[in-house]
Amino acid sequence: MQNRTEATAALDKIVGEKNISTAPEDLISLSYDGTPLLEQMPFCTISPQSGEEICAIVRLANELNFSIVPRGSGTGLSGGSVPAADCVVLQMQHWDKIIEIDEENMTATVEPGVITQDLHTAVEKAGLFYPPDPGSMKICTIGGNVAENSGGLRGLKYGVTSDYVMGIEAVLPDGRWVSLGNKCVKNVSGINLKDLFIGSEGILGIFTQILLKLIPKPQDQKTMLAFFDAIEDAGETVSAIIAAKIIPCTLEFLDQTTMRCVEDFTHIGLPQDAEALLLIEVDGDASITEREAQQIIETCKKYNAHEVKFAKSKEEAERLKTARRSAFTALARLKPTTILEDATVPRDKVAAMLRKIQEIARKYDLTFGTFGHAGDGNLHPTCLTDERDKGEMKRVEEAFEEIFNAALAMGGTITGEHGIGLAKKNFLAKSELPANLQLMQQIKRTLDPKNILNPGKVFDV
Amino acid sequence: MQNRTEATAALDKIVGEKNISTAPEDLISLSYDGTPLLEQMPFCTISPQSGEEICAIVRLANELNFSIVPRGSGTGLSGGSVPAADCVVLQMQHWDKIIEIDEENMTATVEPGVITQDLHTAVEKAGLFYPPDPGSMKICTIGGNVAENSGGLRGLKYGVTSDYVMGIEAVLPDGRWVSLGNKCVKNVSGINLKDLFIGSEGILGIFTQILLKLIPKPQDQKTMLAFFDAIEDAGETVSAIIAAKIIPCTLEFLDQTTMRCVEDFTHIGLPQDAEALLLIEVDGDASITEREAQQIIETCKKYNAHEVKFAKSKEEAERLKTARRSAFTALARLKPTTILEDATVPRDKVAAMLRKIQEIARKYDLTFGTFGHAGDGNLHPTCLTDERDKGEMKRVEEAFEEIFNAALAMGGTITGEHGIGLAKKNFLAKSELPANLQLMQQIKRTLDPKNILNPGKVFDV
Repeated sequence: MQNRTEATAALDKIVGEKNISTAPEDLISLSYDGTPLLEQMPFCTISPQSGEEICAIVRLANELNFSIVPRGSGTGLSGGSVPAADCVVLQMQHWDKIIEIDEENMTATVEPGVITQDLHTAVEKAGLFYPPDPGSMKICTIGGNVAENSGGLRGLKYGVTSDYVMGIEAVLPDGRWVSLGNKCVKNVSGINLKDLFIGSEGILGIFTQILLKLIPKPQDQKTMLAFFDAIEDAGETVSAIIAAKIIPCTLEFLDQTTMRCVEDFTHIGLPQDAEALLLIEVDGDASITEREAQQIIETCKKYNAHEVKFAKSKEEAERLKTARRSAFTALARLKPTTILEDATVPRDKVAAMLRKIQEIARKYDLTFGTFGHAGDGNLHPTCLTDERDKGEMKRVEEAFEEIFNAALAMGGTITGEHGIGLAKKNFLAKSELPANLQLMQQIKRTLDPKNILNPGKVFDV
Repeated sequence: MQNRTEATAALDKIVGEKNISTAPEDLISLSYDGTPLLEQMPFCTISPQSGEEICAIVRLANELNFSIVPRGSGTGLSGGSVPAADCVVLQMQHWDKIIEIDEENMTATVEPGVITQDLHTAVEKAGLFYPPDPGSMKICTIGGNVAENSGGLRGLKYGVTSDYVMGIEAVLPDGRWVSLGNKCVKNVSGINLKDLFIGSEGILGIFTQILLKLIPKPQDQKTMLAFFDAIEDAGETVSAIIAAKIIPCTLEFLDQTTMRCVEDFTHIGLPQDAEALLLIEVDGDASITEREAQQIIETCKKYNAHEVKFAKSKEEAERLKTARRSAFTALARLKPTTILEDATVPRDKVAAMLRKIQEIARKYDLTFGTFGHAGDGNLHPTCLTDERDKGEMKRVEEAFEEIFNAALAMGGTITGEHGIGLAKKNFLAKSELPANLQLMQQIKRTLDPKNILNPGKVFDV
């Protein structure tokens, strides 16, 4: 761009002095997100107060040729909200109003900056339920969840964010404003544009309002932890539970490295010698959860679980879930750099994929902790490393490439829930058919001919 | 187009003599679909035998400038598969292979011509379940269901076709071939193109393969019919059931006109004096369906149902469901022309919308039978008329316009599950924001610059 000063002055006119900053102390915390190894300073940050302001900002960007990176809480794990060169960060975290909870239609209308857990709390008070629960739910925003199509621990039974988005209001990269979908549970009025924006990682539009589907709150939960001496046994258990047509809401896996780190961190009494842990939760009507929990415990034992802990209270259930919820934090304490990935495979390939990750870790002499959503086939192989060690970082890169290739060879995907962002751009071209990628690029160019919105993310145009 | 003979000869070379016809007797049955008042002769029909042939056909169309209208069973209700001028009908009904039922991953891979009910039968044998059950399920195809994003009677609990499509292989309007999605239940690899094709009414691509999500088959069903003297009472019952956090799989409504026609047609013993009927089915574990059914019966009685029939056997349940399944056929016997619409409103507006339809019918002196998916807010006001009566047809048109406007004013949509096609093109522009419609048109132009695929449907470009 030609003139940052000109852009800043014009932006100041739109949002007002209070809502703009070019001070390094305000910009530094916006120069990175939850993804390691990536950072870039924006030249300015703005906090728009209305949809009209956002439209005006976007039109200005087209005119003066600067780029815009929308940002919620910045918890993304693929660099989707890391600033682009010569960009303005458009902060949306203060758009945090829950506009309506409509009990009759079971919907919630929210601003994009609402914290996911705040929404959980609000809707559960009304006996309703918003299932998506990404790991960062205490701080991440609904807007970010929609932009990344976030998953979580309850995906096996309840699906992901896209399964709950009924409507999106967004400002397009050329300053037009669209309102897609509504409270009708069936709606085929024209081609489906709404879903194009879900998981669009901030490259197609800036959300100003989101309409979410809610469901009745499940009445009861039963939570179990099972420990296995062999990963295969844990894998077989997952398959056997599903084969019995039981769909737990949560079916999570931790390997030995992760378990040991979690135990060091939390002291909740995880055995140090088990090779794998499954966290299993069923929910629904109490008469059924009781029966399903018994079936699951028997299945775990049949496949050689040497211990199954069964939570007798809500508090104990929360303690058991801590093992999984703290996995990332616990692993991150071991080494200076933690690279969390989310290679995903069809459910029946989970055991094979887990072995493959172990094999690759050995081959490249790296420390990996692997945990994840076993029921979804969505694994998080996490490399514990040190970015200052250039030799090791080279091996890390090669190891991840091999992991992604293995996932693809098993009919999987390079990302189940974290998105492409900057971190996996290079892999997208390898994993998608050329025509798929071309079509994505064509659509981006159609919506954003000047490439001003979150440029360089997902793919280049 | 310049030369039909040239196009026909070139197509003959691609698909072979056996798979092409220009004979009027072959074309006449392809000149219309399930929508009244619309027809157009194609100049040729072809039955491609492979994806390569489809790619070649599409490239040829771009070169010689003829248009292509893909077609399954032609049961559509908005004219989506009615031929365009100067078009070739691309028949896909013979692509009827169920390629795989993957029990471990709970998926089905099918060709687009598979009949919906054949898929139901096949997956249920494996203890699995494919919920979407459009009214025409005995003859319609999965490809058509995906193209229209079809609903059905089980939408309230289980959603619509789009909730079950995990992957689509399609030939684009320029002859490229894309493969979108896979067996991973979580997949955010690039922007979401798959859902753009669901409900695209044949204007964006020709499906060659579809990957569907399955769920465990519910173990038990309980089916009830309740009769009410006032529409408001039926409406209140619907709201009260949902408010009690019971989500029936089916919650269907029939008004008096429809009920009388159904009784004349089926003689299943429906009372002639009731003003409204609700067909309610709960499914799932037997312990819960039993309890929920009791709660529902009590709720119906509380809101003045004068009779509730409870099916004691599978056969009786089927008989009760016949009342709803035969509604359209029964209504169609009364007058020469039956115009079935699907104005849809948020669930809490159902009673208001039903009254509005009655009011409009009286105002325009027309006979309407209204039935539909009350739990989804998806109503089918059906006008019984005679297309030869020009005066009445004018009133019919005005009445439907008023119905659509009323639905929109209540936060609804002009189509819940039938699509826009040709029949509602004029209303799309009125119901969508200009920017929404422009964006749809931009995307169509991006994918189909020469407008060869099902041109003139949904909107003009």
